[in-house]
Amino acid sequence: MTGHSYDLAALKAAIAESAGLVDAALDRMLPRPEGRQARVQEAMRYAIQAGGKRLRPFLVLQSARLFGVPDARALRVGAAIESLHTYSLVHDDLPCMDDDDLRRGLPTTHKKFDEMTAVLAGDALLTIAFEFLAGAETHSNAEVRAALVLRLAEASGHIGMIGGQVIDMLADKSFGIAEVIELQRKKTGQLFEFSCEAGPILGEASADDRKRLKGFAEEMGVVFQITDDLLDVTSTAEKTGKAVGKDADAGKQTLVTLLGIEGARAEAERRAKAAVAALGPHAARAPNLAALPFFLLDRDS
Amino acid sequence: MTGHSYDLAALKAAIAESAGLVDAALDRMLPRPEGRQARVQEAMRYAIQAGGKRLRPFLVLQSARLFGVPDARALRVGAAIESLHTYSLVHDDLPCMDDDDLRRGLPTTHKKFDEMTAVLAGDALLTIAFEFLAGAETHSNAEVRAALVLRLAEASGHIGMIGGQVIDMLADKSFGIAEVIELQRKKTGQLFEFSCEAGPILGEASADDRKRLKGFAEEMGVVFQITDDLLDVTSTAEKTGKAVGKDADAGKQTLVTLLGIEGARAEAERRAKAAVAALGPHAARAPNLAALPFFLLDRDS
Repeated sequence: MTGHSYDLAALKAAIAESAGLVDAALDRMLPRPEGRQARVQEAMRYAIQAGGKRLRPFLVLQSARLFGVPDARALRVGAAIESLHTYSLVHDDLPCMDDDDLRRGLPTTHKKFDEMTAVLAGDALLTIAFEFLAGAETHSNAEVRAALVLRLAEASGHIGMIGGQVIDMLADKSFGIAEVIELQRKKTGQLFEFSCEAGPILGEASADDRKRLKGFAEEMGVVFQITDDLLDVTSTAEKTGKAVGKDADAGKQTLVTLLGIEGARAEAERRAKAAVAALGPHAARAPNLAALPFFLLDRDS
Repeated sequence: MTGHSYDLAALKAAIAESAGLVDAALDRMLPRPEGRQARVQEAMRYAIQAGGKRLRPFLVLQSARLFGVPDARALRVGAAIESLHTYSLVHDDLPCMDDDDLRRGLPTTHKKFDEMTAVLAGDALLTIAFEFLAGAETHSNAEVRAALVLRLAEASGHIGMIGGQVIDMLADKSFGIAEVIELQRKKTGQLFEFSCEAGPILGEASADDRKRLKGFAEEMGVVFQITDDLLDVTSTAEKTGKAVGKDADAGKQTLVTLLGIEGARAEAERRAKAAVAALGPHAARAPNLAALPFFLLDRDS
């Protein structure tokens, strides 16, 4: 525990509420398996339904409410970011990538279906993310929809998430702190940044507000990654639902291998405080958002 | 030869001019390999530079000029559709899909690099297609940019191109003419339809004009597919730069296996005429577009 006080029950309730809303939105928005292409539509749903905390849609919803954006709009963006995140997991699990058989305790998509279907279902989830953003219901101002498409393409593309995955696959023992932070900011941080910027983009807020939410996401991303790496070292497969100790086995550097468990935890706490500071005047108006980095510090799965 | 007269030299010149313009646009717009993620950016360029006739960007440019759209805008859409088409080839060639070692006489992307890089380069090409469309330089009206994103996501997604690939992988000897046409319209036809609709969308033309260009593309797509299937039977690997006779080996039905060589050729000619008829008043104003289906009928590679 960090000693930082926040309303844990309220935050847990908010995360659960948001997950319920986004699950319902995904169920409405994703295609129902139909016709001769039903197999890929089933695989899209299977991959999404494997679940998780729906952290990225939570960030979208919370940042959107801060700027008075109706949930109905934010949920479309939440469905988009979750579809995109899920595609990255489906492709990441493939035999030619991380070669994982399990994800959150369930067979990965290529195990449940087959490799070909997993490649195509991932492609289709990536594609539909942009369809969700560009749809007229996302915002009455098409400039906003185009801005969301552009920002997500950048965050998830060759200099964003995909760039991070490439760096990760080439990473070795020589990586220092700066390299690890660059890798992780691209690989996982960029989608958090998109999620938090979605609120001010949807709310047509000022550039300063967008910077505040982006700054929050950037620091929070490091907290998420450090706590993920800590869990990889300290937790059990039972709790996290996936293989643990993989980073050390693969000879990869993380902030935990570079700073040690105590050093990494201290860095994560420093980053959690920096995240709240970045929110500026919004921290008090968005207690659940401000509590999230500390909640991540305390997590055990 | 079909006996249908058109200016072959003018069409060839127009195709070459368009390919030159789109190659230059792709070279400008695709990322230069830089930093730790250079490998995936190199693979993106490698896959695109493997070339081809750039037929889809040709359709975009020609349909755009018909509605007075500046080339600079159309070329961004041309770059987007070529990036998207190329991603589909990169993923299609993977060992878990068609498992092809050669594409247009060159090693496929996963052979030149590795499978992981090919998956990620494909993902990045798909992602950047939407970035190109949503960028402000594509059109001053954001409604147009959002409409392009939406139409491309639909054409290439689970009910479009990806749907067609799924149907193709499950296809067997039981497929009749209707099933083969549905499969091919999704797998290859939808991207032609997007390419031809891009002109009226960029030109903010009437719904009738959009229908005309879409109708043209639909018929032309069948011509393209039949002539492709004819080449698979009658041509040599040397001319097409890829393995031939694969459909028959795989026990798959095509309009050629279902109608016979002469029957399929007659159907393609009928479709070529229908394509020109669909253009209506635009056929006379766009001689290169109107000639294309007949050019496809005559092609030998």
